[in-house]
Amino acid sequence: MGLGEKLIEMKNISELMIDLAYSSLIYDNREIAEEVKYLEEKIDESYNQIIDESIRQAVEEKKPETAGIIIRLATSIEAISDSAAQIGDVVLRNIKPHPIIRESIKESDITIVLGVVKNSSILANRTLGELNLASETGMWVIAIKRGGKWIFGPTENTRILPEDRLIAKGPIEGVEHFKRLCVGIDKKL
Amino acid sequence: MGLGEKLIEMKNISELMIDLAYSSLIYDNREIAEEVKYLEEKIDESYNQIIDESIRQAVEEKKPETAGIIIRLATSIEAISDSAAQIGDVVLRNIKPHPIIRESIKESDITIVLGVVKNSSILANRTLGELNLASETGMWVIAIKRGGKWIFGPTENTRILPEDRLIAKGPIEGVEHFKRLCVGIDKKL
Repeated sequence: MGLGEKLIEMKNISELMIDLAYSSLIYDNREIAEEVKYLEEKIDESYNQIIDESIRQAVEEKKPETAGIIIRLATSIEAISDSAAQIGDVVLRNIKPHPIIRESIKESDITIVLGVVKNSSILANRTLGELNLASETGMWVIAIKRGGKWIFGPTENTRILPEDRLIAKGPIEGVEHFKRLCVGIDKKL
Repeated sequence: MGLGEKLIEMKNISELMIDLAYSSLIYDNREIAEEVKYLEEKIDESYNQIIDESIRQAVEEKKPETAGIIIRLATSIEAISDSAAQIGDVVLRNIKPHPIIRESIKESDITIVLGVVKNSSILANRTLGELNLASETGMWVIAIKRGGKWIFGPTENTRILPEDRLIAKGPIEGVEHFKRLCVGIDKKL
């Protein structure tokens, strides 16, 4: 994986961490908060690799410019993921958020919602890529709870199964349609 | 505005700042980077108000718990916005990002795209609320350039006009449709 790709992977994970951190807060869910903490450790590893590799390349190619920007960006992204971990930490410390905070997040223009997939749902047994859920409905699945386990940051190849619990992020206008898709009332995206 | 609402406003601005910071990087655009810097100052003001007000309320109502969580969250959100400002600062310092970084961001699962609205576009002369653009297409308008001026973080009441330049965030599968909507080739959301 090249430096550019590694940096973008860091960027994507840091954004997922922010969404998961707020999700852990809304649903007062320790497991999601633990995942944020785990991702923070992964980010730290990537950060250190990126710093070392970019300096190594700069020396080898005698080009200091690229290393400068990559290190600045990686440092900012690392700081964003630190902050997301701090938000998750509120949940891990068993501090109960005041209901007004939860409700306010739920009523944001961009919100986070939970849907349980029924057998009769058109989402069941199809991959996120086949469904194009995000571009068709605006709702972006950020995590799936299946049985006792979580899938965090599902990809286009992730298949949705009946009984999956989906956590999605998207515009508040899309929430009702998303819930109706999950339970099988709405039959079209 | 209550403390919960103020905190959510901070959260929303911090997320807008991250998106704008990456936009400024992709389009090497100083004006967007300047807006990120301006928003950082606004966030600092809100942060200080929230800290003071939450402590004042805690003392008045003799309830320390809520202040504790609000201050933790506000501090994390403030740190996220600082990091976004640092990303924008790369552009303000005239450091040219390596093309690979720009291209990598554009190829992310969630990407940022620019569209110019033609007269014949079905987006023209309608508000974002009327269009439900985000829930219908997955593409979320984060900024509009109209004439020489910018509208950052448009609301559902913002009306799109012909010749507007829209910066939108959304799933990469939604990009082509979004561009075709802007130029008037696609006539349906």
